[in-house]
Amino acid sequence: MNKAPKTAITPTRVDDYPEWFQQVIKAADLAEVSPVRGCMVIKPWGYALWENMQRVLDDMFKATGHQNAYFPLFIPMSFLEKEAEHVEGFAKECAVVTHHRLEPDGKGGLQPAGPLEEPLIVRPTSETIIGSMYAKWVQSYRDLPILINQWANVVRWELRTRLFLRTAEFLWQEGHTVHATSEEALEETRKMIDVYADFAENWMAMPVIQGEKTPAERFPGAVSTLSIESMMQDRKALQAGTSHFLGQNFSKAQEIQFQDQDGNMQFAWTTSWGVSTRLVGALIMTHSDDDGLVLPPKLAPSHIVILPIYRDDEQRAAVLEYVGKLREELSAQYYSGRRISIEVDDRDIRGGEKKWYHVKRGVPLRLEVGPKDIDKNAVFVGRRDTGETKSMDRDQLVADVIGMLDSIQTNLFDRALKMREENTCEIDNVDDFRAYFTAKNPDRPEIHGGFASCYFSNEDDLEPLLKELKVTIRCVPLKDNDTPGTCFMTGKPAEKKAIFAKAY
Amino acid sequence: MNKAPKTAITPTRVDDYPEWFQQVIKAADLAEVSPVRGCMVIKPWGYALWENMQRVLDDMFKATGHQNAYFPLFIPMSFLEKEAEHVEGFAKECAVVTHHRLEPDGKGGLQPAGPLEEPLIVRPTSETIIGSMYAKWVQSYRDLPILINQWANVVRWELRTRLFLRTAEFLWQEGHTVHATSEEALEETRKMIDVYADFAENWMAMPVIQGEKTPAERFPGAVSTLSIESMMQDRKALQAGTSHFLGQNFSKAQEIQFQDQDGNMQFAWTTSWGVSTRLVGALIMTHSDDDGLVLPPKLAPSHIVILPIYRDDEQRAAVLEYVGKLREELSAQYYSGRRISIEVDDRDIRGGEKKWYHVKRGVPLRLEVGPKDIDKNAVFVGRRDTGETKSMDRDQLVADVIGMLDSIQTNLFDRALKMREENTCEIDNVDDFRAYFTAKNPDRPEIHGGFASCYFSNEDDLEPLLKELKVTIRCVPLKDNDTPGTCFMTGKPAEKKAIFAKAY
Repeated sequence: MNKAPKTAITPTRVDDYPEWFQQVIKAADLAEVSPVRGCMVIKPWGYALWENMQRVLDDMFKATGHQNAYFPLFIPMSFLEKEAEHVEGFAKECAVVTHHRLEPDGKGGLQPAGPLEEPLIVRPTSETIIGSMYAKWVQSYRDLPILINQWANVVRWELRTRLFLRTAEFLWQEGHTVHATSEEALEETRKMIDVYADFAENWMAMPVIQGEKTPAERFPGAVSTLSIESMMQDRKALQAGTSHFLGQNFSKAQEIQFQDQDGNMQFAWTTSWGVSTRLVGALIMTHSDDDGLVLPPKLAPSHIVILPIYRDDEQRAAVLEYVGKLREELSAQYYSGRRISIEVDDRDIRGGEKKWYHVKRGVPLRLEVGPKDIDKNAVFVGRRDTGETKSMDRDQLVADVIGMLDSIQTNLFDRALKMREENTCEIDNVDDFRAYFTAKNPDRPEIHGGFASCYFSNEDDLEPLLKELKVTIRCVPLKDNDTPGTCFMTGKPAEKKAIFAKAY
Repeated sequence: MNKAPKTAITPTRVDDYPEWFQQVIKAADLAEVSPVRGCMVIKPWGYALWENMQRVLDDMFKATGHQNAYFPLFIPMSFLEKEAEHVEGFAKECAVVTHHRLEPDGKGGLQPAGPLEEPLIVRPTSETIIGSMYAKWVQSYRDLPILINQWANVVRWELRTRLFLRTAEFLWQEGHTVHATSEEALEETRKMIDVYADFAENWMAMPVIQGEKTPAERFPGAVSTLSIESMMQDRKALQAGTSHFLGQNFSKAQEIQFQDQDGNMQFAWTTSWGVSTRLVGALIMTHSDDDGLVLPPKLAPSHIVILPIYRDDEQRAAVLEYVGKLREELSAQYYSGRRISIEVDDRDIRGGEKKWYHVKRGVPLRLEVGPKDIDKNAVFVGRRDTGETKSMDRDQLVADVIGMLDSIQTNLFDRALKMREENTCEIDNVDDFRAYFTAKNPDRPEIHGGFASCYFSNEDDLEPLLKELKVTIRCVPLKDNDTPGTCFMTGKPAEKKAIFAKAY
């Protein structure tokens, strides 16, 4: 006789967090590796989650005055060369198109033919190709601002890939804006990191810290990079979105110039900002448990699954009728701008298997309905986030469903915030810092210190220590960070605290 | 003094139809050529139109049981080799990735480095890469059908490109389905061409003929290709969407096999179907006129533009208040599932310039409001499709607006259908056929014959004639095509009529 595993996912988070993550994705059928090195296949359940994210973000972008457009997949090699830091950042990992057809190789196979005069790079990010168009579109201050976003695929030839977190091809949006003044461009940069934080916290139920990257961690070519940083359940940080103030670096490289109101030619000020399918990885790692995926109701492709339970055709007819009416009343209601989305799973498979199928996929509420429930005008309700189950009066459920979904959404945020707060530590000396990031917990050997909040004066001074401990400066938080202090390492005066952590 | 042109677009359709098309796109700011050979930039107004198309099509796909997913951009070269006709069809025009980084070339520039073991093709269509996943996913008849769609970019290295109609990179959707039986796959193939026809006629206001392609015109690797064909205003045909029954060709090439209910292994039956940003080109060429773009209201990014007219600040305040209330009452209403979308253009530019700006962009209804209109509780209304203008009682306008939009939608369809009917001819002999496609109209030399409906027995017999006249068989219509006749060329018995035309 097989011994039933204690959890639906093997290994558990404690046993092997990276492998647990892969197994959650597999059990929820979110994505798979493909035969193309480093590229993933996003399966229907995973893609539906991404579509919900897209819809909400797109509405937010439009509400802040942005329009969508679409620019070419390919970037001529010479375009990348124009901004020195930028090419340095991306040249080492990009897909290069060199030919435009295939011909027989004489051995029954094919070989590339038709060499291109200039190689094309599959976009790793689109500052250069979009900038080349903006240089044509911008002539006068009257043409500004330009506020455009693009939903697209990009390719970065990563050597070590992981589903959703780091893949050679990924899906994202990239906003690219042009402004007449530095102030306006900085305001845009901050506005968009605010939008991302709003989305992460209020839709993904994922608490984030907004901050500025230190110079070594900036986007290649940026003057300033803002990011949102989130803590995963293994206490590592994940950068979930970035917004870059590009100053005049790209406008000078690409000659984006305009005539100001006094008739003088000026270089414009640009920004770019993006989030990607990496957010799906962040969402999985923030909320899921040892039984699989846990979805925040506001983004779940299905809010509710109903499992009809019966033994014969007569019971089946009665149960399905009851379920049909219940479904109708539930799906007539709206939660967070969407009609409540309900699956009825009437497949002919064992009840236990069916239940676990939906647990592993993270559906927020599970309703089981059998003849005995009908007799009591009741429904057996299971909450995915807490595992709590109870019998509820059917009419009460219909009346309370919005509140129940909202309670799940809030609970997920609260417990993620609690986890972060319990694993964030103020540290003011090197010994404690080293101990924090090397201390081993005998019960949970995979766990290192979480976030360390420390004053620092100069990141260069810290480099050897950070390299040794495999810790990075995640960001200099924008909020509650105005009191000067003393660098935890050098003892020099320091303006700001930063968050230090191991990171994805 | 400049002589004002008679039309907003130069040249007119009669003078130079292809150039007129380019100028309509430019005047409406829909798209531009990019510095990347053959790739276009879709600008915000053009992209908003595509987004509306996507939204409606996506709803239709989901209503017919399909789910979205996402597959890799790249296809290993060896995958293309597996289906002989398929590789023949696409090998001659594809972007080939051969390297995965750039390195300094020693002359201050860059050169490709890091050669790949196996070249990757940027997907021209995804049958092979998606099929390789389906081969893993399909084990048993219980796994079928698979009904998946993907929204993606694809690349075909076309030598002669035209905005929207034929570009090296374009955006599309591609449905890929797997079925247990031939009948079910054929039903899917027909269902999806029906969906496309429904979309073309009821949303784009573009009449189409559903038909089957002859063997020479099939998708490479398909057993049968269905298409929708539409007549542009120069009487040429445009293929606007295709749905392919792939039989077992791809399942055999890729080993998509399942165990049937009797325990026997069988090859599955597959289909694929797609429409692309080419639809935007079709929409432009179907409805637009010599003053620019004309948009069907159901897909227009803005249904209405309001132009406030005033001479001083006092008038401005009164007009904007009146306009604000009008906007509110109009935009509280829904047309074809969307809230009525209204722009108020209060830019400080000349009234004539402003009016023509919106005419050229194709906004269905234009409302002008000045102090005199307010005195009469009226609005000056301009219809883009007919050019008709009139003063209307303001409350009447609010009450009638849905009907007016619907009347524009219907008028666009009706006049496109009339144009096609007037330019479709039944032909039963070669002399008439030749005359039809070579006759010159001295007043409109660019116009050739439109659609010819002719019985034919074997397309091979017709090849020399069609080649000479640059005419193609567009399709064998599915409807009203059951009475046998005689081939217009050979006099042999013929089962069906086909539509012959010059084509895009």
